[in-house]
Amino acid sequence: MWNDGDNAVGGWLSIPATLSAEVMARVGFDYVCVDTQHGAVEYQATVELIRAIEHGGSCPIVRVPWNEPGIIGKMLDAGAHGIIIPMVNTVAEAEAAVAACRYAPHGGSRSFGPTVVANRHDDYVTWARDHVAVIPMIETEQAVGNLTDILQVPGIDGVYVGPADLSLTLGLPPGNNDGEAAFDEAYATIVAECQKAGVAPGCHASAALVPKRFEQGFRMVTAIADQLALRDGANAALATARGEATGGEGGLY
Amino acid sequence: MWNDGDNAVGGWLSIPATLSAEVMARVGFDYVCVDTQHGAVEYQATVELIRAIEHGGSCPIVRVPWNEPGIIGKMLDAGAHGIIIPMVNTVAEAEAAVAACRYAPHGGSRSFGPTVVANRHDDYVTWARDHVAVIPMIETEQAVGNLTDILQVPGIDGVYVGPADLSLTLGLPPGNNDGEAAFDEAYATIVAECQKAGVAPGCHASAALVPKRFEQGFRMVTAIADQLALRDGANAALATARGEATGGEGGLY
Amino acid sequence: MWNDGDNAVGGWLSIPATLSAEVMARVGFDYVCVDTQHGAVEYQATVELIRAIEHGGSCPIVRVPWNEPGIIGKMLDAGAHGIIIPMVNTVAEAEAAVAACRYAPHGGSRSFGPTVVANRHDDYVTWARDHVAVIPMIETEQAVGNLTDILQVPGIDGVYVGPADLSLTLGLPPGNNDGEAAFDEAYATIVAECQKAGVAPGCHASAALVPKRFEQGFRMVTAIADQLALRDGANAALATARGEATGGEGGLY
Amino acid sequence: MWNDGDNAVGGWLSIPATLSAEVMARVGFDYVCVDTQHGAVEYQATVELIRAIEHGGSCPIVRVPWNEPGIIGKMLDAGAHGIIIPMVNTVAEAEAAVAACRYAPHGGSRSFGPTVVANRHDDYVTWARDHVAVIPMIETEQAVGNLTDILQVPGIDGVYVGPADLSLTLGLPPGNNDGEAAFDEAYATIVAECQKAGVAPGCHASAALVPKRFEQGFRMVTAIADQLALRDGANAALATARGEATGGEGGLY
Amino acid sequence: MWNDGDNAVGGWLSIPATLSAEVMARVGFDYVCVDTQHGAVEYQATVELIRAIEHGGSCPIVRVPWNEPGIIGKMLDAGAHGIIIPMVNTVAEAEAAVAACRYAPHGGSRSFGPTVVANRHDDYVTWARDHVAVIPMIETEQAVGNLTDILQVPGIDGVYVGPADLSLTLGLPPGNNDGEAAFDEAYATIVAECQKAGVAPGCHASAALVPKRFEQGFRMVTAIADQLALRDGANAALATARGEATGGEGGLY
Amino acid sequence: MWNDGDNAVGGWLSIPATLSAEVMARVGFDYVCVDTQHGAVEYQATVELIRAIEHGGSCPIVRVPWNEPGIIGKMLDAGAHGIIIPMVNTVAEAEAAVAACRYAPHGGSRSFGPTVVANRHDDYVTWARDHVAVIPMIETEQAVGNLTDILQVPGIDGVYVGPADLSLTLGLPPGNNDGEAAFDEAYATIVAECQKAGVAPGCHASAALVPKRFEQGFRMVTAIADQLALRDGANAALATARGEATGGEGGLY
Repeated sequence: MWNDGDNAVGGWLSIPATLSAEVMARVGFDYVCVDTQHGAVEYQATVELIRAIEHGGSCPIVRVPWNEPGIIGKMLDAGAHGIIIPMVNTVAEAEAAVAACRYAPHGGSRSFGPTVVANRHDDYVTWARDHVAVIPMIETEQAVGNLTDILQVPGIDGVYVGPADLSLTLGLPPGNNDGEAAFDEAYATIVAECQKAGVAPGCHASAALVPKRFEQGFRMVTAIADQLALRDGANAALATARGEATGGEGGLY
Repeated sequence: MWNDGDNAVGGWLSIPATLSAEVMARVGFDYVCVDTQHGAVEYQATVELIRAIEHGGSCPIVRVPWNEPGIIGKMLDAGAHGIIIPMVNTVAEAEAAVAACRYAPHGGSRSFGPTVVANRHDDYVTWARDHVAVIPMIETEQAVGNLTDILQVPGIDGVYVGPADLSLTLGLPPGNNDGEAAFDEAYATIVAECQKAGVAPGCHASAALVPKRFEQGFRMVTAIADQLALRDGANAALATARGEATGGEGGLY
Repeated sequence: MWNDGDNAVGGWLSIPATLSAEVMARVGFDYVCVDTQHGAVEYQATVELIRAIEHGGSCPIVRVPWNEPGIIGKMLDAGAHGIIIPMVNTVAEAEAAVAACRYAPHGGSRSFGPTVVANRHDDYVTWARDHVAVIPMIETEQAVGNLTDILQVPGIDGVYVGPADLSLTLGLPPGNNDGEAAFDEAYATIVAECQKAGVAPGCHASAALVPKRFEQGFRMVTAIADQLALRDGANAALATARGEATGGEGGLY
Repeated sequence: MWNDGDNAVGGWLSIPATLSAEVMARVGFDYVCVDTQHGAVEYQATVELIRAIEHGGSCPIVRVPWNEPGIIGKMLDAGAHGIIIPMVNTVAEAEAAVAACRYAPHGGSRSFGPTVVANRHDDYVTWARDHVAVIPMIETEQAVGNLTDILQVPGIDGVYVGPADLSLTLGLPPGNNDGEAAFDEAYATIVAECQKAGVAPGCHASAALVPKRFEQGFRMVTAIADQLALRDGANAALATARGEATGGEGGLY
Repeated sequence: MWNDGDNAVGGWLSIPATLSAEVMARVGFDYVCVDTQHGAVEYQATVELIRAIEHGGSCPIVRVPWNEPGIIGKMLDAGAHGIIIPMVNTVAEAEAAVAACRYAPHGGSRSFGPTVVANRHDDYVTWARDHVAVIPMIETEQAVGNLTDILQVPGIDGVYVGPADLSLTLGLPPGNNDGEAAFDEAYATIVAECQKAGVAPGCHASAALVPKRFEQGFRMVTAIADQLALRDGANAALATARGEATGGEGGLY
Repeated sequence: MWNDGDNAVGGWLSIPATLSAEVMARVGFDYVCVDTQHGAVEYQATVELIRAIEHGGSCPIVRVPWNEPGIIGKMLDAGAHGIIIPMVNTVAEAEAAVAACRYAPHGGSRSFGPTVVANRHDDYVTWARDHVAVIPMIETEQAVGNLTDILQVPGIDGVYVGPADLSLTLGLPPGNNDGEAAFDEAYATIVAECQKAGVAPGCHASAALVPKRFEQGFRMVTAIADQLALRDGANAALATARGEATGGEGGLY
């Protein structure tokens, strides 16, 4: 995904429909992440969404609902190329996350049985070792405090920041709080620690914030979610239709 | 919907997910139409989409796949407030469409059994007589030719133009072909005939074309589909994220 | 079902869930009918409902949405033991209904491919010839008028009366209109014609009306639908809970 | 729900169908609870059931399968107004339950991302603080023993008793064991402790037991489940149909 | 599919699961056909199965339940590369089948709205003209009798023989009846007429019969269905496991 | 299942479709296990698969994704006759597994509420005590080392070996590694310990290995999974069709 040195821009899926997933994948995001934590999606739909993302030419990753080995294994068996694990606040939690993602010879204790994904790779054990990205979320004050140690855990490829949860634990409203000292400082710490450890830092942003995040050193930034893109597009269309704005040339059939 | 003299702006659903339906409904369209002809949706999902549209505060209508009484009845029983029927080209087809939508005392032969929708209205037979809109599509050269007679069929509330199909039968590329004489003439005929018959003309458009369509005399115009809104929103976000455009202030959490 | 001379009492399914289907089947109805015309159910769910009914020990039949050979074939292939076909008003419609239900050697032109049901019967062609019941609905004034001729069509096992639709075409409110001359007369005609033709008459009723319908000569009477049983049971429980009624001994766990 | 001083009577959902959910909601229960622990329901269906309950005019709450933050967060994001958490036996388990339900500024560590429910409330963080009910289950001898301490945990709005599980741990058959000293004593303790702590006691009951439970001091009592209401209603109908009982006036259409 | 002069061997899908579809596609069949006539599959699942077949590297075609324009259009919009239409017995039925598959400029009256499939092709109208295969089934004595005329209908790419239905109308048991004069003669006629008309003949067969069918001149032959492959494989495994046969080296994990 | 002294041969389900489940059940396996750990299946589908297995005449068991009481309870409530629990490596994990499967009077703390399965057994508490099999997986070097102690935990009916996971922890490639000393020794230990403890040993195998496993003392051996049977059957058919092999007599219809 970002192994070639480039920065990755991502899309986010909350809608449990393969049509919207395929549309998002074909728009050209470097990765498309199925959010099974906060999106209206769980395992059975995710199997289909992963296939739709691949069919659409993008790289499918999955945010699991929680740091629990059963669901992590299921999502990897379904073909996820990477797993974003929420609320990893301690070294022990980071070790558990890695263990759930990697097989025994490669630093973990993931159970073997790639029922779906083995159809797609001739030597899945090797493929998984080389391609599966383990991405714990750093999204609390506690996690930022433990980050130096967390990043020592072998097998972590990236970390991902949830600005809303981080902000809540910093006493700020949920969202991007650029300009707030505590928020800016946490972001700077995360990037600096990741660069020291050779781990790719990632985060949620808005489309407008993506260039700034890349300048800050982030290498994997999600620009938009399907639900928000839909709402933005529909709001714009309705305003135009009512003569309150201009745009919306694309016709329906 | 448009009985109060106002014009109605609509949204269109192709994605079989209640989350996207609820988002579309809450944007504020006067109606939201579930497209079971060309959308990736069939009956079982539509039952849920109709409820999501109502929960979101909009008026649910359904385009059926074809002029067939079984599916028309199922969609009405599921709670549709109106039915758009494709490819109604003749008086006989218009009569069949009306018959499938209305009960015996009220000009049709719809079978009684409003299993889902009767939960929502104390006297559904009366409600249906007063609220269900029958909207045949006028979308071929043949249909435009027969329109005067079609509009004599009792029980038609509106007609709906599919510009793509109409264009194909006129030898034009699928879409809105404003400026092409054959297209403009057909549109003018449709509006004029509807006004004479006291029937509301409706059509697919783009957001940008809606004001023009209202000026032309249309009273029910669909401005955007979910899939297109999603694609537009995602494309805009990706361009902004890559620094090729500006916008996208709304952040992810 | 009723071939042994007994009368059959049936349950009706509108809810697309196998749990409710299994509950209905285990209550002890002689047959349980999946209503894909007015129930919130279509083909994919029906495959599961049929299995649940058989697992629960009852006989699964299906009301199709319309007299259309594609869906009739699909429901039979899914394992229905009988098909109730709505709105059969003419001899031609009755012939079409029979043709869709029976294979070529046995008086019809049903397409062969019992993909699901052949798992359950070693010689399905013979089983189907001997067990599949073809049951057109007689539910309009026109159908009653044509009944003598309709019953001459070979291959009809029973007819089924929808009192609501019949009432609407007689100018009565939808429902059972016992005491109204036109309604009573139609019912008497239907039973008499069926007895002459050696065909089993069936109908929708209420639980309270079932004994009367059997006395009138009906042999297959549906007593209750899942949705109504649920509503009745829940209403009674709420009244009891609020101290407005007594009952409801059965405890929750 | 019960904040206005009134007692709340509830319905319970085990069937994964929105039609039955909407029927239950419209009957008039003060709340309708989706049981994802013992009902045949999991997350994806629950998103739809919550919407159907709200559409039907009742208050949707959810019993989660277990005291696990991933699924608690998903159910709240899906729009549950309250969460019933099974098998909370210790202070630590109660703290975990509260933490999973409340955001950082309001006494918990729930992850932010109300993807579905934020469509329904302009300021969801405030709405959640004011409306989300946290309801641990007290359903073992151990939990009753720890109840004084458990009720000291800040953020608990009510407790809910499962009489079957409580009975099993008391050496009694599963169910309501009124008259058994151990059972009656446990119930008295629970009500007394709740009243001291200003927390609302709730429980499963039968319809007939609801008035007694309110007299005992319970303020939230579930009277019936969909599956039981269906079975009761169907059994009554069949008995009436066979002439073994009377009733069942409501006719089918 | 077979335009390059090669013969095509196909697989057949009756199971509504994308995992089995992907497995079938990756085995290497030239086409994989979703059977929505006799398989346990309808539209909503087919949208996913088509994507899974393409993801697995094969060519997805669909057999529709009946010669009905609504469902034919839906399957093409979902991305089918070809449509097999059952029971085309007359010229009029063949004309209707072609009309439902082709757009107005290209010999038909298919309604425009390729909601799903247009995501995959930049100029779908041209793609559809060049790639969509229209394949009526010739599977009755009547159809064979009308075949010369049917093949004059412009826009037919192939015909497909259902040996079971053909056999039933010839008074034979359902299946391949090689050696029966009526069956052999019908097959010879079909191939000869197709060769004259420049239309590709296809048929159902068994794996063992495929080479013979190619020798007979068929160019598109289906060798196996998923359900049969599964049953064959499971039967062989059980026999081996019980020591009644040998084989089954492939281990489970 | 194997209580009568016989050895049990099993089938394995990875495909979330009731049609394939029913086919597998009717082939004649002594048990059919729904794999919700590595199969493409989760809870909602499993409810249906269990019913299909019973309808097909086999004994349904379930492998849960992880040793977690919520999902174990849900699968038992759905009607599983036995639960295979992955990665049970310690006595504490074995105790947790048993506790989740058995009710309070019978050695566990399973929560009561057999919503689905109680429809099938008049006295489910007794049925569950006598019939539910608790089967922890022994699939790591650690688990084999702890096996003597694990087997002392009351309430274990069998153990089940995953050869792939066991091999990985032994430094071997995933699969059956007969002939490798570490693998053979672990298998011998497992059988010997089980025989001492009176617990039935089970394992994954290939069809060809089943007879050897029974000779080694295993009493419950899975011979094939649906996905593998399908692939084997389809590969064989394609090879035959292309003239590269012989076989495949069974014809399609």
